[in-house]
Amino acid sequence: MAVKPLLKYAPLFLFQIILVVLFFVFVRYGEPKNSPGFEGTHVMIFIGFGFLMTFLKKYCYSALGFNWLLAALVIQWAMFCQNAFHMKDGKILVSKMEMVEADIMAATVLITFGALLGVASGVQLLFIAIVETAIGCANLYLVVDVLKAADAGGSIAIHTFGAYFGLGVSLAFRKKAAQDAANNPVSLNAPSYTSDVTAMIGSIFLWIYWPSFNSALVETPGEYDRAVMNTYLSLGAATVVSFIMSSWLSHDEGKFDMVHVQNSTLAGGVAVGAVCNMHIQPGGAILIGIGAGILSVAGYRFLTPWLTKKGLLDTCGVNNLHGMPGIYSGIISIIIAALATSDVYGTELATVFPAMDPKLDDPRSAQNQALMQAAALGATLLISFVTGLITGFIAKLPCFHPLPEDKRYNDEVDWELPS
Amino acid sequence: MAVKPLLKYAPLFLFQIILVVLFFVFVRYGEPKNSPGFEGTHVMIFIGFGFLMTFLKKYCYSALGFNWLLAALVIQWAMFCQNAFHMKDGKILVSKMEMVEADIMAATVLITFGALLGVASGVQLLFIAIVETAIGCANLYLVVDVLKAADAGGSIAIHTFGAYFGLGVSLAFRKKAAQDAANNPVSLNAPSYTSDVTAMIGSIFLWIYWPSFNSALVETPGEYDRAVMNTYLSLGAATVVSFIMSSWLSHDEGKFDMVHVQNSTLAGGVAVGAVCNMHIQPGGAILIGIGAGILSVAGYRFLTPWLTKKGLLDTCGVNNLHGMPGIYSGIISIIIAALATSDVYGTELATVFPAMDPKLDDPRSAQNQALMQAAALGATLLISFVTGLITGFIAKLPCFHPLPEDKRYNDEVDWELPS
Repeated sequence: MAVKPLLKYAPLFLFQIILVVLFFVFVRYGEPKNSPGFEGTHVMIFIGFGFLMTFLKKYCYSALGFNWLLAALVIQWAMFCQNAFHMKDGKILVSKMEMVEADIMAATVLITFGALLGVASGVQLLFIAIVETAIGCANLYLVVDVLKAADAGGSIAIHTFGAYFGLGVSLAFRKKAAQDAANNPVSLNAPSYTSDVTAMIGSIFLWIYWPSFNSALVETPGEYDRAVMNTYLSLGAATVVSFIMSSWLSHDEGKFDMVHVQNSTLAGGVAVGAVCNMHIQPGGAILIGIGAGILSVAGYRFLTPWLTKKGLLDTCGVNNLHGMPGIYSGIISIIIAALATSDVYGTELATVFPAMDPKLDDPRSAQNQALMQAAALGATLLISFVTGLITGFIAKLPCFHPLPEDKRYNDEVDWELPS
Repeated sequence: MAVKPLLKYAPLFLFQIILVVLFFVFVRYGEPKNSPGFEGTHVMIFIGFGFLMTFLKKYCYSALGFNWLLAALVIQWAMFCQNAFHMKDGKILVSKMEMVEADIMAATVLITFGALLGVASGVQLLFIAIVETAIGCANLYLVVDVLKAADAGGSIAIHTFGAYFGLGVSLAFRKKAAQDAANNPVSLNAPSYTSDVTAMIGSIFLWIYWPSFNSALVETPGEYDRAVMNTYLSLGAATVVSFIMSSWLSHDEGKFDMVHVQNSTLAGGVAVGAVCNMHIQPGGAILIGIGAGILSVAGYRFLTPWLTKKGLLDTCGVNNLHGMPGIYSGIISIIIAALATSDVYGTELATVFPAMDPKLDDPRSAQNQALMQAAALGATLLISFVTGLITGFIAKLPCFHPLPEDKRYNDEVDWELPS
């Protein structure tokens, strides 16, 4: 330990004091502005992500505790960072809408936490969260305000960013595979019957409120209704297909794997995210969900074990739930944008596709939006992975209290446990 | 036992019959009046309080069961008692707004239940709930209608009242410390790994919906947005600081204590309650949350063990989550009221501060509101503790089936258990 254990969270207290000063100086109440998606999104962040990560048998306190601590910190910090790009007379004006945006940015950090679950220490996680929030908000500004990409559900700027930032950190944390396998208390990187049930609380609440998340920031009633319906249908199809794929690719006589049920079911929400407010038709939403279920279960079944063998850890398999489905959603958004016409969207065209020329029906306008979608996806992948890698290397310094390998996936490190 | 066990809930059946008669005679549908906070508050009362109290390893059925029974009883009784002070032509007119108010009064009783968890019998709890609801509604009338104190989130009339009524009962239940320590099955007054996880379901749902609770009864859109935002930020800061304080004051090398995480995190919602609709600024909300986290964890760490040693039991530590943070909120409300001017509040001044003179900008008007805040806090403390004490002494009579000390914290007393 670099400092005495009792003082290891002193820098966090300092950061909380910095936050209160920043708020007193810069943040004021704005005009009341509601978002119907707030309550649902709030449940997803604190119950959904928190309980989904309780699937490990001896890491439930840490999953719930760090999820809560990280999110409570990030909502404050993100409310500042996101709006620092949109000050008015040197002040940040906040309403309930800015609370939703802060909650959504917390999702980015919690996805990264999922990749590092049980592997990064508390102090490392807090450092990563603070850095990632700042970079994630800058990347969001690039995607939404500079490139004017369409990404209503945040599949590009939130899910893809969070997943590949996490995998970047994980690559920096990588140890030689043989050494890792020898020292790891493998038995703790596994669920118990109870922990798999509590994880389902999180998984199902995420599933229930995903339509709120994807629709939280849209502007018109038409977009809102499409976002809710498309997400609902994509999740339904992804769930059915995840069960089918789980049985089909089973290790053991067609039995279901709880990991697929807890995670791949949700990939439909990520996959439809970037296009959820678009005219993809209800059938299109179901088709996207089918693809998400196949992609996600196949990822858990084949890709994650291969990456783990190479030493790249991803405890929750966020690459299969947020990473690849996020890229898939980004690619779909390129296609849908390229096909958009005012015949279908009418006056909504410029709202749904902010990079389109106001001169409607110009095919070059749709091509420009498609190009911006591709640029947003490419930039997000590059920025998240590279900055995650750098952050990971810094987080390995002793001052961030890295976790010895034999202390991984274990609540004992950070919690007073019942005897 | 005073009567045969099969008949011990017969008086409760009689009371339910009295309720149906009272409703037929006095209660009618009023004009529709919505409250955006109802659904969230409802989740808090039934999921939030219920699951938070499942932290004891052998008292989960009782925590969930009695929480539900008490709340289901109190919402009916409170809907009558609260509105008995506001009859029109001898009738009580009810809408969804009166449902929220009844739910909020249930919180008062459930806070008291938290102090007595595992110590009071089912019949005692029901008797206490019926008496406390009637007195609590009268105290609420005193605070809101007579003194015209500002208490949007109920930190004075709900949290402080419930906590000190409970501690009054607890003082009446007090046994000599030595006797208590000798007879107590101490091992049952403790969590298990699983019960601490289920308690987090309650804790996090309380946290999520606290902004709905604090904003449920406000009148203007500006007040609503401020109440939601201030509660959100105060909770965020209290959560971060609770973790830091838990580690700092740790018994064991900077490890977190689950009791602090489950409870002190929520103290930010109580602490901001009485001022949540006021212009405290986002930074002020964070500052209040920081103070709440420090106060609450310090209370759990030092004050509760000392009170327990003196024989004053408080199973959930409601003094640290509702009592002291409620007083803290009341004191803050005195200060904020004293500083209020129409420059800041405009036409909202008389809505936010009902005791202010309509003649705006008169400093004596702000002083009068500050005085009423102090009177409300003082009266609530006195009334709750004294009536709690008297109720406690009555509840010790054999007809209320007091619990022998060796049956405390044990579901076996009241539940058929799986073998």
